[in-house]
Amino acid sequence: MSSPSGPAPRAASDLEKNANISRNIVWHETTVDRNARESNLAQRGTVVWFTGLSGCGKSTIANELDRLLIARGAASTLLDGDNVRHGLCAPPSGLAPEHGDEFAERFGLGFSPVDREENIRRIGAVSALMSSAGLITLAAFVSPYRRDRDRVRQMVEAAGQTGDFLEVFVDTPLEICKQRDPKGLYKKAIAGEIPHFTGISDPYEAPKSPEIHLRWREGMTPADAAEEILQAMVDRGVFASRS
Amino acid sequence: MSSPSGPAPRAASDLEKNANISRNIVWHETTVDRNARESNLAQRGTVVWFTGLSGCGKSTIANELDRLLIARGAASTLLDGDNVRHGLCAPPSGLAPEHGDEFAERFGLGFSPVDREENIRRIGAVSALMSSAGLITLAAFVSPYRRDRDRVRQMVEAAGQTGDFLEVFVDTPLEICKQRDPKGLYKKAIAGEIPHFTGISDPYEAPKSPEIHLRWREGMTPADAAEEILQAMVDRGVFASRS
Repeated sequence: MSSPSGPAPRAASDLEKNANISRNIVWHETTVDRNARESNLAQRGTVVWFTGLSGCGKSTIANELDRLLIARGAASTLLDGDNVRHGLCAPPSGLAPEHGDEFAERFGLGFSPVDREENIRRIGAVSALMSSAGLITLAAFVSPYRRDRDRVRQMVEAAGQTGDFLEVFVDTPLEICKQRDPKGLYKKAIAGEIPHFTGISDPYEAPKSPEIHLRWREGMTPADAAEEILQAMVDRGVFASRS
Repeated sequence: MSSPSGPAPRAASDLEKNANISRNIVWHETTVDRNARESNLAQRGTVVWFTGLSGCGKSTIANELDRLLIARGAASTLLDGDNVRHGLCAPPSGLAPEHGDEFAERFGLGFSPVDREENIRRIGAVSALMSSAGLITLAAFVSPYRRDRDRVRQMVEAAGQTGDFLEVFVDTPLEICKQRDPKGLYKKAIAGEIPHFTGISDPYEAPKSPEIHLRWREGMTPADAAEEILQAMVDRGVFASRS
């Protein structure tokens, strides 16, 4: 049931319909509708996906947006390297040492092209689960390949509907990112110490039509950028006023 | 900031402290505290982990609990085979067909012992992320091995604190599960068509001290079981009244 102040109700997604069918066979008839979750939260479950070069500011802006969202009473969460690296996308060394190398080598994620792709695929799957639960899910990863980002969009929309995925292109010139170099990674990449580094030795495929395009300008602050995204979310009907 | 009606504030977890340190170096100083997320939701992020034999009723009870939680205005979500099988824990056939077999064989999850272990590890990592976001996360998987369940408990508590993980042992006798056999799996397992089937050809390691032990009794309904768990959650201080 949707409260008068809640977001407009959704039609059941294909995945939900299929789940309902399979659940009916095994007597799971009490499945909760996504609208009911979103009505409790007075928001639509949405994925805000930040993409851009290392050092472009995506994590800083995502943290600032997270802060703004929580301050206005929303239910949001943030996925970035800090919280997926030791769990969901753990490297080989972080996995079940009691199994020895077979387990770790098979399931741990490194930096090869397929490992990076699986990394984004897994984060995308989790983003889809979180937005299905009604959360506003902020994800900040370089995610340089268009195909990988489009696959995330498809996963999120398949669990909901078109409009649940907002791609934010943090479009900071490479020269600025290199000057900032907060972790010293560009220096190492240019010295050849980090192979396949986006922008140096590996391509960055810019989004063709991101929902939000943050063009860098002199003096722009993370707070400015976060406010711009928040306003776009309001305009798109992500929130409804709590009555 | 915690509202007067919100749950009692937590101390920062070790993971949060470490994240704050690494974020300060790279100017991510606006990191949101978990308490603020939980205060918005008037609940503590908690994982309710259902374990038990196939057919014991764990999914049905979890769905019923989910319904009760949403009806009382809480923010909850449910992870089960239906929503992880095609994304987070996709089988080889469901993964990036444009890559061919290498990708699928490496990252797709099948039914071997290590695949099952990785399946539970990944779901555990996601449960920890979801409870960190403040959600009440219900997870319903056979999860027959004590070590796997204990690892999930550790992940959830490392992202928060002791008490954030509630293990629910749905203790239905094997004979009852076999009689129900909602998906015809016991029949196939007994005929030798499904190898390593828990309770038939593979062990189930019962929890030694689950937070909630649901002993089957004649006439017990899913609603009874869900009410019992909800009451245990209230008693443990998972909720605070919304003022």
